[in-house]
Amino acid sequence: MSEYSAPLRDMQFILDDLGLLARLQALPGQEEIGSDLAQAILAEAGRFASGVLAPLNSVGDRQGARWNDGAVRTADGWKHAYEQFVEGGWNALSCSPEFGGQGIARLLSAAVEEMWNAANVAFGLCPMLTRGAIEAVELHGSAALKETWLPKLISGEWTGTMNLTEPQAGSDLAAVRSRAERNGDGTYRVFGQKIFITYGEHDLTENIVHLVLARVPGAPEGVKGISLFLVPKVLLDASGKPDARNDVRCVSIEHKLGIHGSPTAVLAFGDRDGAVGWLVGEENRGLEYMFSMMNAARFSVGIEGIGLSERAYQRALAYARERRQGGELGSASREKVAILRHPDVRRMLLSMKSRVEAMRALGYEVALAMDVASGHPDPEVRREQQAFVDLLIPVVKAWSTENAIDIASLGVQIHGGMGFIEETGAAQHLRDARITTIYEGTTGIQANDLVGRKIARDRGVAALALIARMRDCARRLPRSEDALEPIGHALDLALDALERGVSCIVQRHDQQPREIALGAVPFLQLFGLVAGGWQLASSALVAWQRLQDGTGDPAFYRAKLHTAQFYACHLLPTADGLARVLTDGGESALEMDDESF
Amino acid sequence: MSEYSAPLRDMQFILDDLGLLARLQALPGQEEIGSDLAQAILAEAGRFASGVLAPLNSVGDRQGARWNDGAVRTADGWKHAYEQFVEGGWNALSCSPEFGGQGIARLLSAAVEEMWNAANVAFGLCPMLTRGAIEAVELHGSAALKETWLPKLISGEWTGTMNLTEPQAGSDLAAVRSRAERNGDGTYRVFGQKIFITYGEHDLTENIVHLVLARVPGAPEGVKGISLFLVPKVLLDASGKPDARNDVRCVSIEHKLGIHGSPTAVLAFGDRDGAVGWLVGEENRGLEYMFSMMNAARFSVGIEGIGLSERAYQRALAYARERRQGGELGSASREKVAILRHPDVRRMLLSMKSRVEAMRALGYEVALAMDVASGHPDPEVRREQQAFVDLLIPVVKAWSTENAIDIASLGVQIHGGMGFIEETGAAQHLRDARITTIYEGTTGIQANDLVGRKIARDRGVAALALIARMRDCARRLPRSEDALEPIGHALDLALDALERGVSCIVQRHDQQPREIALGAVPFLQLFGLVAGGWQLASSALVAWQRLQDGTGDPAFYRAKLHTAQFYACHLLPTADGLARVLTDGGESALEMDDESF
Repeated sequence: MSEYSAPLRDMQFILDDLGLLARLQALPGQEEIGSDLAQAILAEAGRFASGVLAPLNSVGDRQGARWNDGAVRTADGWKHAYEQFVEGGWNALSCSPEFGGQGIARLLSAAVEEMWNAANVAFGLCPMLTRGAIEAVELHGSAALKETWLPKLISGEWTGTMNLTEPQAGSDLAAVRSRAERNGDGTYRVFGQKIFITYGEHDLTENIVHLVLARVPGAPEGVKGISLFLVPKVLLDASGKPDARNDVRCVSIEHKLGIHGSPTAVLAFGDRDGAVGWLVGEENRGLEYMFSMMNAARFSVGIEGIGLSERAYQRALAYARERRQGGELGSASREKVAILRHPDVRRMLLSMKSRVEAMRALGYEVALAMDVASGHPDPEVRREQQAFVDLLIPVVKAWSTENAIDIASLGVQIHGGMGFIEETGAAQHLRDARITTIYEGTTGIQANDLVGRKIARDRGVAALALIARMRDCARRLPRSEDALEPIGHALDLALDALERGVSCIVQRHDQQPREIALGAVPFLQLFGLVAGGWQLASSALVAWQRLQDGTGDPAFYRAKLHTAQFYACHLLPTADGLARVLTDGGESALEMDDESF
Repeated sequence: MSEYSAPLRDMQFILDDLGLLARLQALPGQEEIGSDLAQAILAEAGRFASGVLAPLNSVGDRQGARWNDGAVRTADGWKHAYEQFVEGGWNALSCSPEFGGQGIARLLSAAVEEMWNAANVAFGLCPMLTRGAIEAVELHGSAALKETWLPKLISGEWTGTMNLTEPQAGSDLAAVRSRAERNGDGTYRVFGQKIFITYGEHDLTENIVHLVLARVPGAPEGVKGISLFLVPKVLLDASGKPDARNDVRCVSIEHKLGIHGSPTAVLAFGDRDGAVGWLVGEENRGLEYMFSMMNAARFSVGIEGIGLSERAYQRALAYARERRQGGELGSASREKVAILRHPDVRRMLLSMKSRVEAMRALGYEVALAMDVASGHPDPEVRREQQAFVDLLIPVVKAWSTENAIDIASLGVQIHGGMGFIEETGAAQHLRDARITTIYEGTTGIQANDLVGRKIARDRGVAALALIARMRDCARRLPRSEDALEPIGHALDLALDALERGVSCIVQRHDQQPREIALGAVPFLQLFGLVAGGWQLASSALVAWQRLQDGTGDPAFYRAKLHTAQFYACHLLPTADGLARVLTDGGESALEMDDESF
């Protein structure tokens, strides 16, 4: 049975060798985050992930969360693990020090989040949702709301949820029907049914803070008439202690393909006299507030994809080292070898590994950009970095999660017949990963966000700036070096393809939005593929320099070079085809009669 | 809830419009299979599939097969459905008339098999395994074995199994350790443990006929020392009636990701004094016999992939028609539309539909080639067609099943959050499909078979003959027609890519088998992609001609054209990238240190 081990070496490479930590340290207030401190935090998180969370992953899968008469019991050991999580201060890691958080940079908290998700994604969802609630209250709530709710949300003594979806309103929030009536004393009574509420009910904490989208009387139709409310599961007494149950009830939880340990609740608000809620910010601005939370949540789901992929890779690799089957191809010996020796297994493993490392480097680059966008003294730098973040969030979200499904599926494949047996554990990763391209906005929604709001709207400025940055990187690879030439060459061609895609969107999006939408997902895949190739090319250059200089661990740097070469020669060649789907994909899918599908 | 409806219209198109039935009728003994008779058989099978098998699919998934003290109970309703299956004569459809079969052509039985698998793949596995056992006994068994066992296997009163895998011998049959001792009276006593035995134990019939690989005393090591034995679950009395239990016992069944309705047994042979078995054919030739069965089984698994894909498509399409969400893109109206109207949903649906139709047309072409290879009077034609069959079996097997996983996963995606809820049914197709790239030889094994035995061995002759045939088709598409030009153009480019791949294999395989093996799976994907493109190009030409002539249903033919255009412009453009992985993929995956993965 493979256990999870945090990929500290690769994380260190990104922070130190790729220079992300140095760029973080250049920000005001971040000067003290040295490499040693960063490594210490990551190592400690790694121990918690491996020692406490990872062993509960299969328990959660087998037992699932269990509903009984409105209450939800989490799987054996989960409550204790959550208590340890809170005691260890992990929930407060990235939160504002003003209310008890540790205010650690997004760069580091992203790495830590990757570990929670790799160890146990169903567990990791709980603090992820709590962070979303914290962010909404922190950014948009009144001083009173903050004082009342933030300290315990940040410590993790209470958890948070996001209540968007209703049966008729999934991706389309304009259709939200839940309503909130003013009580006249500043509070509201909330009525309605919400579905797909992650950790909407559980036994981990004594209170749950629901953030709920609903309409006030007289609100405009559509997305402009949605307000955001804070509705606790348990109302507080005068001293701020949980006291009486609010009028919100968990009607049932879903029977899902994966993430069984994470309860997905149907919540009924206001079955009796209305659930007491407090308005967050102003009326009718709920969607705007939700979007600010949603960007963070989308990034976090991208990190889930990275964590899941790493775990699937580790499990498949352990099996490939241990399982002996067949002789070495091209050898006369009949001796059985570990299947890691078989070329196709190596291909699958490197397809997994190279994408994991590309996604990780890209994800952390975006996390650092968030830190710079909020912390840099120069407003122009902040603006630039925010544009980079906005551009890449749909890519990190959708590309990392689409990869995660494919990588988890390759993990099953490497196990052969054993991969199909549930006890092996490989299948759980595939089942768990399958939700990540759906929640917090499907891949199609991310792709429309990318081509519409992130590229067409600014006429490709942010995208072309990134392409210029990536071309710079490609140019720095010395083409006289056999180890680097194929990487640079493949990246050049892939960048050409990406640039053709961007031009096509800028030229055609406004006139032909439906045609462009047909190629949006392939274009997003292209974008992720090339951005990942950029990160690995940059990694290869550093690794090659270290090997030239004779510094550091040569085996690690050689592996990094081989990994980047594999990505360049096995994955980047699909870039041109993806671009052509966008530019020359035709309109057959629009011309097809609805009845003829 | 979406029900399955057999795609009779598309099947008819392949049989009639693409001319496959006419080519079948040209064979001696097949003159009477006219279009009406073929349609009658398919319609009747479709009714059985929809009416009896499809409703049991989710029952089997939920309940699974249940083991108790060596006995296995199938899910509610399965035994009755199997009885109806036998009574309807469906098991005997493709079997030899000599022992009670109906001797129907492979072309038609492939279409019928697609329906069983679409309706209920876990059920369909039972008759599929029985057909394998029948084939082994028919081709290699003695007259006595045939007389004793074939009539009831063919009727379906008894079922059959294939016992290859042992814990240490999965893909590598050289490692088989089960042994068979001669009794001196022509019978043997078989000892050993077999795993992953599909329908190795169940309650559908009173007897089960196991075909078992084992070694006789003094047999050579490796694959040349394996013999094939027939070992019944229940021994027969003098009158041929099941009498005493043989020494074979179901120790347990597996807890699997999918196909829950199909029991996957661990069988212990000879725990007491040995399981009585009869040698099939000669000693030490078991692997050869198994391979002849395995080819048929591999083709059948390819058909499973097609059936599963069709079912996933139908379910997703039904949801996309019914689910209303969001307004029409590019329209000022706020009115909610069916998600079928959203471009990205149309893209996903056409990606599913176009591949289903490409796989189906290719699969049936191969089925017809099997009929021609066994039934044509001209030995040269038989040889040619057999070479085509041999070349394409790994492609049909691996390409159709890899597609099935992706198509089932797209089916989940189209359902959004509902796709992740088990009761919706979409997730079951993904779970069920996930085994198909593993059993009967993984995709990696199919790819090695394709590049090694099927292309390198004959120096590419069969592959180049097929490429010439496909180029002929491309040339016949009039480039002056807007509807056909993009299809012909894309096919030309894809054929160039495929031809580069074949040349590369012919030139380099013998010297660099490990390097070629690194690109074998991408090459197989390329092969399937192009062969599917050929079938759809050919379909588009016929559809266009029918539209020109004004014959038949214009809506169907227009849809066929759009479907082929979509495949050409959205899927074929990846061909070049796949070829480059083989030709220029480099050796990084071989150079990487084992320790550095």
